[in-house]
Amino acid sequence: MASYKLLLLPGDGIGPEVAAGMQVVLEALKETGLATFETETDLVGGCALDAHGSPLADATLQRAKDADAILLGAVGGPKWAGVAYENRPEAGLLRLRKELDLFANLRPAICYPALAEASALKRELVEGLDIMIVRELTGGVYFGEPKEITVLEDGSKRAVDTQVYTTAEIERIAHVAFDLAGKRSGRVASAEKHNVMKSGVLWKEVVTKVHAEHYADLQLEHILADNCAMQLVRRPKQFDVLVTDNLFGDVLSDIAAMLTGSLGMLPSASLGAVDAGGLRRALYEPVHGSAPDIAGQDKANPIAMIGSLAMCLRYSFGLGDAADALDGAITDALSGGARTADIAGEGTNPIGTRAMAAAVADAL
Amino acid sequence: MASYKLLLLPGDGIGPEVAAGMQVVLEALKETGLATFETETDLVGGCALDAHGSPLADATLQRAKDADAILLGAVGGPKWAGVAYENRPEAGLLRLRKELDLFANLRPAICYPALAEASALKRELVEGLDIMIVRELTGGVYFGEPKEITVLEDGSKRAVDTQVYTTAEIERIAHVAFDLAGKRSGRVASAEKHNVMKSGVLWKEVVTKVHAEHYADLQLEHILADNCAMQLVRRPKQFDVLVTDNLFGDVLSDIAAMLTGSLGMLPSASLGAVDAGGLRRALYEPVHGSAPDIAGQDKANPIAMIGSLAMCLRYSFGLGDAADALDGAITDALSGGARTADIAGEGTNPIGTRAMAAAVADAL
Ligand SMILES: CC(C)[C@H](C(=O)O)[C@@H](O)C(=O)O
Ligand SMILES: CC(C)[C@H](C(=O)O)[C@@H](O)C(=O)O
Repeated sequence: MASYKLLLLPGDGIGPEVAAGMQVVLEALKETGLATFETETDLVGGCALDAHGSPLADATLQRAKDADAILLGAVGGPKWAGVAYENRPEAGLLRLRKELDLFANLRPAICYPALAEASALKRELVEGLDIMIVRELTGGVYFGEPKEITVLEDGSKRAVDTQVYTTAEIERIAHVAFDLAGKRSGRVASAEKHNVMKSGVLWKEVVTKVHAEHYADLQLEHILADNCAMQLVRRPKQFDVLVTDNLFGDVLSDIAAMLTGSLGMLPSASLGAVDAGGLRRALYEPVHGSAPDIAGQDKANPIAMIGSLAMCLRYSFGLGDAADALDGAITDALSGGARTADIAGEGTNPIGTRAMAAAVADAL
Repeated sequence: MASYKLLLLPGDGIGPEVAAGMQVVLEALKETGLATFETETDLVGGCALDAHGSPLADATLQRAKDADAILLGAVGGPKWAGVAYENRPEAGLLRLRKELDLFANLRPAICYPALAEASALKRELVEGLDIMIVRELTGGVYFGEPKEITVLEDGSKRAVDTQVYTTAEIERIAHVAFDLAGKRSGRVASAEKHNVMKSGVLWKEVVTKVHAEHYADLQLEHILADNCAMQLVRRPKQFDVLVTDNLFGDVLSDIAAMLTGSLGMLPSASLGAVDAGGLRRALYEPVHGSAPDIAGQDKANPIAMIGSLAMCLRYSFGLGDAADALDGAITDALSGGARTADIAGEGTNPIGTRAMAAAVADAL
């Protein structure tokens, strides 16, 4: 039986609670005899800063490199609002992404039928929505140098961030997007601002080339990022796979997530390149944040975290059937009426994090 | 009687049509004896490139500098998709913004009651929506250097854009936002990515300082740009004045515009600093683009352009009453049932650009 090493990084805020919920489901999975999962737990973000003076200790990074996959909860919170830029909780997450070269961020935005009413959009616009956002995650303005604030002679300041993209960086993310589209509807939209940014010009050029050379049978549409944001609100179902850079991806994937009406439900995968042995580094995390306002109250929705485990089974371990079963268990739990506070409509009695996790485990 | 010099730059696509519609209203305004308006017309964008080999001829720029205000239609279209980066139609608009130092872009997102149904969002979420987006327009990644594509030794490419902000640039846009908020609900939200970008760190710091030193009686909220995009979709009415940088402003203002359900209705103002004589350079333009697909068909909605004239009366000439009257005429024309195709609901017979302009002029 295959054996996998998981590193669990619950992080801050509601992170530990949703991670615990996910572990309940993982235990249920183990009992099915599907595979052996060995889990280690470590710190990332604000809690790591408090414990080790760094939002990602070197030892934790090493463990992350040694693991078959990483499951992360969430990082950050007002407690660390005042810490130095290098030490902010987010820096731990960004360092993980960069050091493990997790360049491909997959963010599915799926509207669960049972929850379509929770969307701000009219039901007919979001019912059946199923977009896969492919966000470049290790380049662009997140990591480009110079990135600094300098003090000018008169005492005022000047801040600089640098957006950099190379042909190779764009090529590899384009391949991920087209490969996914090939297994879906065959349509890719690529979003940039080539009318203002040189990185947008190169982005468009490279995506066009990858398409023509390798995926001419798929459909490619170029769309300006500002227009893309509008179209996501206007008629989201026009999109299937949407590929874009790190910063636009940050904003556009959050819009797409919000459209579904259930941010607490959405998982994500951050994938590295496939190595010679067929393996790839990978980190899975909910799209939602650390929600400090409800932390520690057994209120958070664990489904995004549980869905992240499903993505892990699918993308890291090739256990597509088990992933389908887990996704099915989530749907069943919802159909059975299980609702945490964030997705409970009027007149519905919400259940807690633990009860929701148990409902999914039971359905499994 | 006061006399004003207007430069009209209809531009490309539907620009000339909506500009002509606006001129009908301007004629009606002249007849009221309110003020004398002298109008000159010139080229910008693709049509300027075709005529002069540049999307903004130097002579046109000079005329723009000599005018009391500029009214611009729209620029761009597929016809110029292949031209060199420096010559693309948008470059004409960007040069105007930069050379005239039009740093403050005001983009009201108002949901007209008669049109709330056209929004993708549920009616109760957008009815009564009235957000003022204040976008920094002459800095950030739009203009920072280096901005280039270099060819590497192996023949692959590297593209760079640079996001730069100085204390002074952030200060002056913050003042515009707080001054506007003082005349509205007193609430400002400031959006950036200080968790990832140094320019975001400086942005937050400077806005905080301007608030504390000059507008402590107003309410300031800091919000991450990705979260802001989500909140705009989730509960847009939580915002009143929203201040942000050039690139985030591009995306967030387009989302806000789309929420109203009527992009063809939304005007914008791009303002310079007030000079010693109390004057400020200013350009007014619709938020919508050149819509080449419907150009020349008398289909475009001229209201965004007419609303831009209203903003011009208000912000450049201090003619608040006349601006109110014009805004009122727009509302009256809509209440009277006038609808261009973009805002005609099912079962409504749409009228053309000219008829819509005439309806507003009549209501005036
Ligand atoms: C926490 C933050 C640094 C991060 C980002 O900006 O990438 C988050 O918003 C995300 O989208 O994963
Ligand atoms: C036409 C384009 C250069 C422009 C921009 O990106 O600023 C437009 O999208 C806008 O928002 O006015």
